[in-house]
Amino acid sequence: MSTTPPNSDRRYVITFGCPDRTGIVARIASFLAEVGGWIVEAAYHTDLDTGWFFTRQVVRADSIPFDVEELRARFAGVARSLGSESDWQVADTGEPRRVVILVSREGHCLYDLLGRVASGELDVDLRAVIGNHESLGDITRAHGIPFHHVPFPAGDPAGKVAAFARLRALVDEHDPHAVVLARFMQILPPELCAAWAGRAINIHHSFLPSFVGARPYHQAHARGVKLVGATCHYVTAELDAGPIIEQDVIRVDHGDTVADMVRKGRDIEKVTLARGLRWHLENRVLVHGNRTVVF
Amino acid sequence: MSTTPPNSDRRYVITFGCPDRTGIVARIASFLAEVGGWIVEAAYHTDLDTGWFFTRQVVRADSIPFDVEELRARFAGVARSLGSESDWQVADTGEPRRVVILVSREGHCLYDLLGRVASGELDVDLRAVIGNHESLGDITRAHGIPFHHVPFPAGDPAGKVAAFARLRALVDEHDPHAVVLARFMQILPPELCAAWAGRAINIHHSFLPSFVGARPYHQAHARGVKLVGATCHYVTAELDAGPIIEQDVIRVDHGDTVADMVRKGRDIEKVTLARGLRWHLENRVLVHGNRTVVF
Amino acid sequence: MSTTPPNSDRRYVITFGCPDRTGIVARIASFLAEVGGWIVEAAYHTDLDTGWFFTRQVVRADSIPFDVEELRARFAGVARSLGSESDWQVADTGEPRRVVILVSREGHCLYDLLGRVASGELDVDLRAVIGNHESLGDITRAHGIPFHHVPFPAGDPAGKVAAFARLRALVDEHDPHAVVLARFMQILPPELCAAWAGRAINIHHSFLPSFVGARPYHQAHARGVKLVGATCHYVTAELDAGPIIEQDVIRVDHGDTVADMVRKGRDIEKVTLARGLRWHLENRVLVHGNRTVVF
Amino acid sequence: MSTTPPNSDRRYVITFGCPDRTGIVARIASFLAEVGGWIVEAAYHTDLDTGWFFTRQVVRADSIPFDVEELRARFAGVARSLGSESDWQVADTGEPRRVVILVSREGHCLYDLLGRVASGELDVDLRAVIGNHESLGDITRAHGIPFHHVPFPAGDPAGKVAAFARLRALVDEHDPHAVVLARFMQILPPELCAAWAGRAINIHHSFLPSFVGARPYHQAHARGVKLVGATCHYVTAELDAGPIIEQDVIRVDHGDTVADMVRKGRDIEKVTLARGLRWHLENRVLVHGNRTVVF
Repeated sequence: MSTTPPNSDRRYVITFGCPDRTGIVARIASFLAEVGGWIVEAAYHTDLDTGWFFTRQVVRADSIPFDVEELRARFAGVARSLGSESDWQVADTGEPRRVVILVSREGHCLYDLLGRVASGELDVDLRAVIGNHESLGDITRAHGIPFHHVPFPAGDPAGKVAAFARLRALVDEHDPHAVVLARFMQILPPELCAAWAGRAINIHHSFLPSFVGARPYHQAHARGVKLVGATCHYVTAELDAGPIIEQDVIRVDHGDTVADMVRKGRDIEKVTLARGLRWHLENRVLVHGNRTVVF
Repeated sequence: MSTTPPNSDRRYVITFGCPDRTGIVARIASFLAEVGGWIVEAAYHTDLDTGWFFTRQVVRADSIPFDVEELRARFAGVARSLGSESDWQVADTGEPRRVVILVSREGHCLYDLLGRVASGELDVDLRAVIGNHESLGDITRAHGIPFHHVPFPAGDPAGKVAAFARLRALVDEHDPHAVVLARFMQILPPELCAAWAGRAINIHHSFLPSFVGARPYHQAHARGVKLVGATCHYVTAELDAGPIIEQDVIRVDHGDTVADMVRKGRDIEKVTLARGLRWHLENRVLVHGNRTVVF
Repeated sequence: MSTTPPNSDRRYVITFGCPDRTGIVARIASFLAEVGGWIVEAAYHTDLDTGWFFTRQVVRADSIPFDVEELRARFAGVARSLGSESDWQVADTGEPRRVVILVSREGHCLYDLLGRVASGELDVDLRAVIGNHESLGDITRAHGIPFHHVPFPAGDPAGKVAAFARLRALVDEHDPHAVVLARFMQILPPELCAAWAGRAINIHHSFLPSFVGARPYHQAHARGVKLVGATCHYVTAELDAGPIIEQDVIRVDHGDTVADMVRKGRDIEKVTLARGLRWHLENRVLVHGNRTVVF
Repeated sequence: MSTTPPNSDRRYVITFGCPDRTGIVARIASFLAEVGGWIVEAAYHTDLDTGWFFTRQVVRADSIPFDVEELRARFAGVARSLGSESDWQVADTGEPRRVVILVSREGHCLYDLLGRVASGELDVDLRAVIGNHESLGDITRAHGIPFHHVPFPAGDPAGKVAAFARLRALVDEHDPHAVVLARFMQILPPELCAAWAGRAINIHHSFLPSFVGARPYHQAHARGVKLVGATCHYVTAELDAGPIIEQDVIRVDHGDTVADMVRKGRDIEKVTLARGLRWHLENRVLVHGNRTVVF
């Protein structure tokens, strides 16, 4: 599905954070200039509340006279000199991005992602789809993607623990860059939230922080809101409270029943999830506390 | 400011609600047809949860061979025959719509409304602006509108009670169709909420129900949302929980400070309030429980 | 795929147009009331430029004591009495809505529609997908829908004429309620526009009337617009000039290449087409000259 | 109106363009680092079509140990070394931004800008408002701003030439950073377009390139579009064809008359103009051919 791009399209993506001070941009830019790095995209941000500096730099791989491991080794020195031991990453767009998708019965987000993968728009190595129902198995397999059915027995705590263990094993064997909860209706236990921290991406069908938890469209209808929304966010142990990557809304009116809201909301959910996932996989999303910088 | 329109532009606006059943449209339409009423706008809605029927009909005044009082008297019979003693109204666009605006220090909503009134876009009889600060007095008076300064002494409960009494007197002498809280930063006491029920319109600077109460942009910034919003709603005794008339949102990103959010949000607040107020004054908003039908 | 709904969900949808005058609503509503018709949705509009009146009424089928043919026969008399011989329709939601989709290579609209059909969101009888390329055959067949490949030979006028004849035959055998040009990149000849008038629905990848014709995203990029759009419209003989059903836009900026615009635009194209198609199939769209009324 | 900000808020804003190559970011960032410059905002862009590089850097004034003239002198050397003699600027936020506004009769954009100036949101030195009608004189003077009435006699070419000469004199005496055409309904002659190139900002009441020229809402209504828009752009000799700074749209439907479109459109026009003007005055807009980079 995903292949190494021609050399001229291959990029190294550097993301980096450290306490703000003068000279950071110069230090990084000079390092890149010295090795001949051709910057094709660069973004900076300083969080004024915390005095934290963020940057994302995209460099043409063919402008660097050594491989990505060497780049990482050298950049580690730059980062250390700026006071950052570990808050940085050098990604290589030549490495396929491995993705696993979790679903329940609602298929609109899965369909949407499968279509984007099939057309090449979303250039990922989609390793597996895992469902707690079987209903989305056929469409997944029609795309040549493995589908695993992991039932979550209602009212059976031990069965659920076992199901989560199996889910985890099925996911972790792929060491995915992203675990996408594409309307997966089970709440991840804290240990999975921890294991997949910064990689598990959920789409919640409301404009968070409104309407946390179950049946948000019912809540929205009861409150009489005039717009409904969707929120793509990283999963954390607190339900629907993780760092927000992207949100969008769509207009509703008094003529819309809950079912109409559900239908209209789907169109927002799927594009919001797809945008958030793309940005995550392009290393555009830097998490800082409970907020995100999206470059 | 507001004058009786030429006869051909004058309209009678009938709003009506009753338990749904067959024949309602026929009953009302036949009544209008029999007296020669020329309907220029008509809207219907049935709330499926409660089985309540709503309609709004706009009739050319010059098509009705008698005056509005006679129309009201006759329509009362129609309403009664459909099981509705009091859930109806016949408004006359020839009667100026009296409005009083309450403000604090933030002027963007007031400026916006004054501009709409001055240009004739908002065809109202703006009777007074009342501020708990003096700062918006000059611009109000420059428009030829009386401004009253009613200070609300902080930390002085008795003083506040007196201030609200004075506020109420200043408002009630105009018997306004709308009391507009245009970023008025005092919380109305329950008795004022009751006295102005269905007429007091507030603009809250968040996408309710998110970020109720004070400093919603600070709350929004802390949560890291990607859109901020504004909500125009009727005031009820529960803070920021009244029936929503209109909402809108605007995109923000990680580069936006709280001050930026405040600035961007203002553009949404003022247009959302202006839309909501216009719809209210055109009798387009029918309240049903805690929700609105906006025809 | 599509089944007759339970009786209580079945609806008769009356659409009607005539020169405006008093008494139309009363005439139609009284007719419905006399036969016991339970109106669940009603909308009215008068075009002030042309003095034309439009209405759409939705009636519970189980409230009418006879069948839809009898309703049509009786309503014909009502229509005639209001001066309308043919500008009306009585649709029965119990009759499946037959749809044929035309595609080329770009699959995002087709994927989107297939997903909506599979989930039951779009309740249609999808009879066939016809492509001038083979590339979307597999996904179509995976959904159990017949796919026909009709090549359009470039630079071969006679071959094109034959291809359009074959296309027409493949479509017309289903007598579809809608022929959907889901990014079908061939320009329909006038005789097909005429044959499918009011049924052929196109999605154009620009905010019409900007950027008519080929490569609209390239045109948009060259002009430096800050939003790109999509337009769902009825096909007429003049290219991209038919009555507009729905439009939407998405923000772009200087960082977006033409390829980025193409990608972002797809998300707008597919939802705009899906909304327009739904409204068409629900008989919500009334064409009047080159404009539409969308109830 | 505008005062020098406290030292810690004062910024130097560097904008710069040159042919893309490696080492540009390093060169500029190193220059700034060497003089102790504290970068608070930085943005980069490379136009792939033309191979042109753009950057905007915002530096704390109090981090630079010399004045802005010295900074300009030194930066000139940096620019020259990167192949750019003149495609750069160093702005000082401590220098008030002089603005002149041109109006006709429609006041919504002027009202909006006056309100933003009065509240301090738009921190400019508004030197004058010039109208070809007298009608907006009172509101202008109520804000303490000089108003000049320059009539443009219809059907009198010589009179128009004289009026434009007077207009030019009234504008040029202020050497403004921005000449804002806030619904000024006269078409600037080519020599004024040239004289004010890159400083004359217009708001056009359509989503350009649709509906160039007169009465765009009438054109929009006739075409039956479902959204109307507004475009803020630099004025060039070709009518409504200059580089676009910002655009926005608002939804309309079949129920909206031309007058309704005009009214709804105003809300978009005024906020779109205000955004575009703010970005221009903050040196966020870099013009490149007929397109803009908006940092």
